[in-house]
Amino acid sequence: MYNHGMSTLIKNAEIIPMTERDFHFCGDILIEDGRIKTVGSGIEAEADEVIDASGMIALPSFVNSHTHTSMVLMRNYKDTCEELMSWLSEIFPIEDKLQDNDIYWASKLACAELIQSGCTTFADMYFMVWNTAKVVKEAGMRAVLGLSISGDAEETKKAIREKAPRIEDAIGGSDLLRLDIAPHAIYTCTAETYELSVEWAKENNRYLHTHLSETMTEVNDSLKNFGMRPAKYMEKLGVFSVPCYLAHCVHLDDEEAEMLSSYRTSSIVHNPTSNMKLASGIAPVRKYRQLGINVALGTDGASSNNNLSMIKEINTAALLSTVSNMTPSAARPYDILEMATINGAKALGLGDRTGTIEEGKDADIVLINTADVNMTPVNDPLSAVVFACDRKNVDTVFCRGRKLLEHGVLTTLDKEEIMARTRECWQDILRR
Amino acid sequence: MYNHGMSTLIKNAEIIPMTERDFHFCGDILIEDGRIKTVGSGIEAEADEVIDASGMIALPSFVNSHTHTSMVLMRNYKDTCEELMSWLSEIFPIEDKLQDNDIYWASKLACAELIQSGCTTFADMYFMVWNTAKVVKEAGMRAVLGLSISGDAEETKKAIREKAPRIEDAIGGSDLLRLDIAPHAIYTCTAETYELSVEWAKENNRYLHTHLSETMTEVNDSLKNFGMRPAKYMEKLGVFSVPCYLAHCVHLDDEEAEMLSSYRTSSIVHNPTSNMKLASGIAPVRKYRQLGINVALGTDGASSNNNLSMIKEINTAALLSTVSNMTPSAARPYDILEMATINGAKALGLGDRTGTIEEGKDADIVLINTADVNMTPVNDPLSAVVFACDRKNVDTVFCRGRKLLEHGVLTTLDKEEIMARTRECWQDILRR
Repeated sequence: MYNHGMSTLIKNAEIIPMTERDFHFCGDILIEDGRIKTVGSGIEAEADEVIDASGMIALPSFVNSHTHTSMVLMRNYKDTCEELMSWLSEIFPIEDKLQDNDIYWASKLACAELIQSGCTTFADMYFMVWNTAKVVKEAGMRAVLGLSISGDAEETKKAIREKAPRIEDAIGGSDLLRLDIAPHAIYTCTAETYELSVEWAKENNRYLHTHLSETMTEVNDSLKNFGMRPAKYMEKLGVFSVPCYLAHCVHLDDEEAEMLSSYRTSSIVHNPTSNMKLASGIAPVRKYRQLGINVALGTDGASSNNNLSMIKEINTAALLSTVSNMTPSAARPYDILEMATINGAKALGLGDRTGTIEEGKDADIVLINTADVNMTPVNDPLSAVVFACDRKNVDTVFCRGRKLLEHGVLTTLDKEEIMARTRECWQDILRR
Repeated sequence: MYNHGMSTLIKNAEIIPMTERDFHFCGDILIEDGRIKTVGSGIEAEADEVIDASGMIALPSFVNSHTHTSMVLMRNYKDTCEELMSWLSEIFPIEDKLQDNDIYWASKLACAELIQSGCTTFADMYFMVWNTAKVVKEAGMRAVLGLSISGDAEETKKAIREKAPRIEDAIGGSDLLRLDIAPHAIYTCTAETYELSVEWAKENNRYLHTHLSETMTEVNDSLKNFGMRPAKYMEKLGVFSVPCYLAHCVHLDDEEAEMLSSYRTSSIVHNPTSNMKLASGIAPVRKYRQLGINVALGTDGASSNNNLSMIKEINTAALLSTVSNMTPSAARPYDILEMATINGAKALGLGDRTGTIEEGKDADIVLINTADVNMTPVNDPLSAVVFACDRKNVDTVFCRGRKLLEHGVLTTLDKEEIMARTRECWQDILRR
């Protein structure tokens, strides 16, 4: 399944390995048994497949560190709300109606969109993700799936008791999948829910995935209800005592950011498009990075984006960083690409397996075709990827050496069937 | 050339005619002799070509109201400068080396990129645009070309005397092309240069295209050198006494904006990507619109964008408007699409010919294919175009009824040749 015994030689690519600031070179990559065997120049080897990647940029495939895959169903749906809370009030009633079949097809559509944008690893937070686990295997991707939790201790215990085994069962020991725990947010979970989630993460040696400080409403409500700001409240609940990835973090103040930087296993996931579109605000990513916090990148769900394109997210993150700090030095192209690759891998605890192109790592690679008018001339490959590239340039995608996209065509998923079935599911949901 | 005597019937498209707020319907468009003959439902007609546009969204093709087409040569080139002025100091020495052949191929590359993003009309400001005029004809597009002016009265008179006739000659009376006058900016042109430009525009009944208030440096220098802010200075020079389109306008204060709104033939061109990337700032577009100023949209040059994609620009404009005003109501999807279509047409004085899908107008139409994973489901067509669409979805593009793109393939331009020749030109420029 993962090309056991198979070898692929990628020749003449402009490789951005993401191992060293701004480093890129024209060279070759030898993949064996799904892993990167050698990276360098003039590699000579017998391989089952040789790909001439002249005119292609090779990067570690992208890591989408915060998304809600199945929300592709609600793409462009009632997305003219004033802000997060009023929009959620449109979304929650729909979510109550979702069934296994909906999640299965929506996850598949999401995986197709992720692969098309050069992404092979994602962190999901949604419901009934046993369906998503099945889909990730069929797609040949890598994911950490969140056991979504909201409500009180009783609901949490029930979810852990009933849902976790079902998801673990669907994962079936695959080492491309892992179950994490994902309490939704402090405004939908009780203190006990967070404490039980932390306990579960400790017992099972897993990561915790949650939303943090997405809007000023959340901050103000936290001050009113808990007498402290959201990150301080989470610290009090022990959230940062387990490795965690914290989505949004738009409104951490200096004290919270410094506090968070002292927890070396806490990462922030920046979601610029969603934060812009929902009028949540602009996360001070430069400050977080300067404090040494690991900052990853995510698309959030397609209903607040409205894509799952890591290529678009990279572009938006770069532009937003520059204008909000009024200097391009706030985040150079390399910094943005770090967020989308190795920082994402680290955030999810996968830094030893993906996120860079180097010997021994899994062959998670995206080839970007610069031979199109929008990338001609290339001049600077890093700048070209961050500012000029779009989905149409994403040519070939490997996950652990397996080709998931070839010359822009999905190889593991049937696009037409997926679109048709997802549309059917959505029409059916609206009728329920 | 413009399908004289030819007819095309587009059936079953989801049409967003841009004639009425938020209006869209499933219907047909009959094109005859390059013009829109009928728009409606269930049109029955004998046509030379019938296109089944089921699953397609039909919009007026986009108007890029401020660009420097040939700057595609400098795409991704030294684009890590701190701000506009230091970046321009890298660009100006390159521009001194440009020759006719460079402009010809670069304009062609730019036209290819514009068409791929659904754009058929653009306002160009660059050098030696007699080459661009030739290219626009070959591409089958529509453009207003700026006679680029900088320096003092002597240089201006020389340009008007020597260059204007050469451009007019290349235009050769085509009613898809017009020469306007384009003094660069107040920091590169003398007062006399602006006055002579206004005089030329009046005498020839043309529009004036210029940069205005792009950076705070420009504002501060204007205060220091002229004792007033840039827009007030331009008013004093009589610029607004002729119809004009003013690029950027990032830093107009309330008084300047109100003053500008009193000149009913002055339009502002918003360039969000360039303003973000060069750390110029965020233009208060909501304020301008509330004052009744006609606001159009443009990509600026590819060296500060780094694309010429109107689809990307639309997406960025919408996101930036929402987050900078902290409310989506600052600009709804319809408002953004207005900027990219009819407002652009009005800005360039072409509002009676393009910018909407309605009877009698030229058939300037883009068909967007929603049958891809990134646009499934569609839910809201306006939201889908603004937030979910990308270049890969742009299927078919008509300019005055002539097909310039068919199923994503350019029909009037040879993409491979253009890329090869542009790369050669660029390598040659670097060696000069």
